[in-house]
Amino acid sequence: MEVNTGIEYFNEPLYLESGRILPNFKLAYETYGRLNNDKSNAVVVCHALTGSHHAASRYKNDTKFGWWDAMIGDGKAIDTTKFFVICINILSSPFGSTSPLDIDESTGLEYRMNFPVIVISDVVNAQMRLFKKFGIEKAYAVIGGSLGGMQSLCFAIEHNKFTDRIIMLASTYATSAWAIAFNKIAIHGILNDIMFDDGNYDVNLVKKHGLVGMEVGRMAGHISFLSPDSTSLKFGRKYVNTDGLYELKGRFEVDRYMEYNASNFAKRFDPLCYLYIVKMMNNFDCTRHFDNLKDALSNILARLTLISFKGDMLFRWQEMREIFDVMVELGKGDMVEFYNINSNYGHDAFLVEYDKFDFYVKKALEWKI
Amino acid sequence: MEVNTGIEYFNEPLYLESGRILPNFKLAYETYGRLNNDKSNAVVVCHALTGSHHAASRYKNDTKFGWWDAMIGDGKAIDTTKFFVICINILSSPFGSTSPLDIDESTGLEYRMNFPVIVISDVVNAQMRLFKKFGIEKAYAVIGGSLGGMQSLCFAIEHNKFTDRIIMLASTYATSAWAIAFNKIAIHGILNDIMFDDGNYDVNLVKKHGLVGMEVGRMAGHISFLSPDSTSLKFGRKYVNTDGLYELKGRFEVDRYMEYNASNFAKRFDPLCYLYIVKMMNNFDCTRHFDNLKDALSNILARLTLISFKGDMLFRWQEMREIFDVMVELGKGDMVEFYNINSNYGHDAFLVEYDKFDFYVKKALEWKI
Repeated sequence: MEVNTGIEYFNEPLYLESGRILPNFKLAYETYGRLNNDKSNAVVVCHALTGSHHAASRYKNDTKFGWWDAMIGDGKAIDTTKFFVICINILSSPFGSTSPLDIDESTGLEYRMNFPVIVISDVVNAQMRLFKKFGIEKAYAVIGGSLGGMQSLCFAIEHNKFTDRIIMLASTYATSAWAIAFNKIAIHGILNDIMFDDGNYDVNLVKKHGLVGMEVGRMAGHISFLSPDSTSLKFGRKYVNTDGLYELKGRFEVDRYMEYNASNFAKRFDPLCYLYIVKMMNNFDCTRHFDNLKDALSNILARLTLISFKGDMLFRWQEMREIFDVMVELGKGDMVEFYNINSNYGHDAFLVEYDKFDFYVKKALEWKI
Repeated sequence: MEVNTGIEYFNEPLYLESGRILPNFKLAYETYGRLNNDKSNAVVVCHALTGSHHAASRYKNDTKFGWWDAMIGDGKAIDTTKFFVICINILSSPFGSTSPLDIDESTGLEYRMNFPVIVISDVVNAQMRLFKKFGIEKAYAVIGGSLGGMQSLCFAIEHNKFTDRIIMLASTYATSAWAIAFNKIAIHGILNDIMFDDGNYDVNLVKKHGLVGMEVGRMAGHISFLSPDSTSLKFGRKYVNTDGLYELKGRFEVDRYMEYNASNFAKRFDPLCYLYIVKMMNNFDCTRHFDNLKDALSNILARLTLISFKGDMLFRWQEMREIFDVMVELGKGDMVEFYNINSNYGHDAFLVEYDKFDFYVKKALEWKI
């Protein structure tokens, strides 16, 4: 499989939904496979909250594969012998695309807290510019899970001639108060962390130590990605060997797991970028510029495949089902498929239990117009 | 209804499960109604994590009633014209009973982080001492929700001749990894809050400002007490009027609600006490000194009424159902009742939707031997 990683610089303004303007911007991306001659085999894969454009393969000397390596590759569900797969790092993310840590030309300083709030529609608009540079006028399919699913739905509604196939996993049409509540822990923790210093923190110091506010936020995220069943199955009530049951600071295995993950994450993921992306997730509501969900979905021309997971605590399957029901109500029943997968993994299932849904992704990609 | 509030001082040691000893201790309590002549009408009500002995009635100049006022009173489900209701503040709690903020006689200083870890069995043992002082050898009933339900179950197993009626709501037989994960956010936030200073914080300063670590911990608690449905119903995607959708710090109504509650709570509830009580909850496992759940429950002589709530995310109804099933397995099917209440309120339902379960409490209290 051919893999290419790059950064594309756009020396042109991006007009944002907020009314603000990015005078120029850059997008980091990765591609897998080869674009065919008529540029008709591009499959756009949209990443989630903390993901990146590194969706598949493994970098030299790296132990970890891209976040959807099990799905993308030669002979896999998203078959790179057929498709040219492209994954683009979202704006605001710390992995290469324009983010709050970049230089604001108007001041010559880093944006930091002056970075504009970016919404899903902006992310998608920016991506459209990159496809244009590639000469891709129409994608074969767009696919994404979680925050990536929001991007997919946005493509379907706001760029409805861009593709004939949309696949959306573990996502929603509008972030619920419940999900916003989970995100609040990170927002509150980060904004009130002394080290955060209203966004003026020392980046290297944060990379070394991590913010406590980011750690607790990540813990809340972890909980929302899991499920009661998977957590109990994985950890039970096992106590850390070296800790005492009657020590105040003694930990259960689940405590240690959360500590370990939160600590690593806080060093790896910039807290200001996290704030901006969480804001992006909270703001997502595909009906904002429409009368209601029906009105919004009436714009969809592509065939929509919805894959939800029964144990998903963050974006519940009922929310995906609502999209399906409205599509049917709109007389588009033959253009929508809904699969509700049994899984103990909660929201994380779309990153873990491939064998339960890769067949449906493959099937959706095989659909002929 | 006669209401009496008091603190009882015990100038005698309390031997703890940890092996540590409290050389003396005190218990704050409140009673409602009158103890009858043969002292046979006492109903023990056990409070939850952040509750206190102030379960019913309203103090002079206070706007708020006790936490279960809807349940306790003349003619109410726990009828104080018949019963003498007693609620005792648990050890480790900041509302009057011995806590980490009390003086350690061996040093003349406050215990702080040297306070022993208290478990549910210790809490119940201490309460037994108070009943003895009241001359109550046998209670008419013991009832509690959440952490109070754990106390009820502990009475049933470890003091199995103390009462013939146990009522347990929204609780479990052993705290799950899932619940421990939620508590981890508070533990991590508090222990790593600079102001906490390894337990040596200035109490008045904390009362004035509140720890951020406590705030995020309370937010996590709030989420675990709610349910996706109740949260979405209550807040939807409503935005705070004064905040902008495209402002990084702009808030949804659910954000404001969480901020408001967390901020108040952090000023009202001591963070070290919270750590100790959360530890108590995490440690709870009624099977610890037994081979398994069946072995533990085989000790129960009282009639057990279990009331769970379908939307409870913290202690799921399945956990209560397990207690029921094992009781039936033990041939005690005629001594156990299980009610699974439909509610959108999640764990909080036992503090909110009285009309959905007060009938079952009343019925359990009316049961004749």
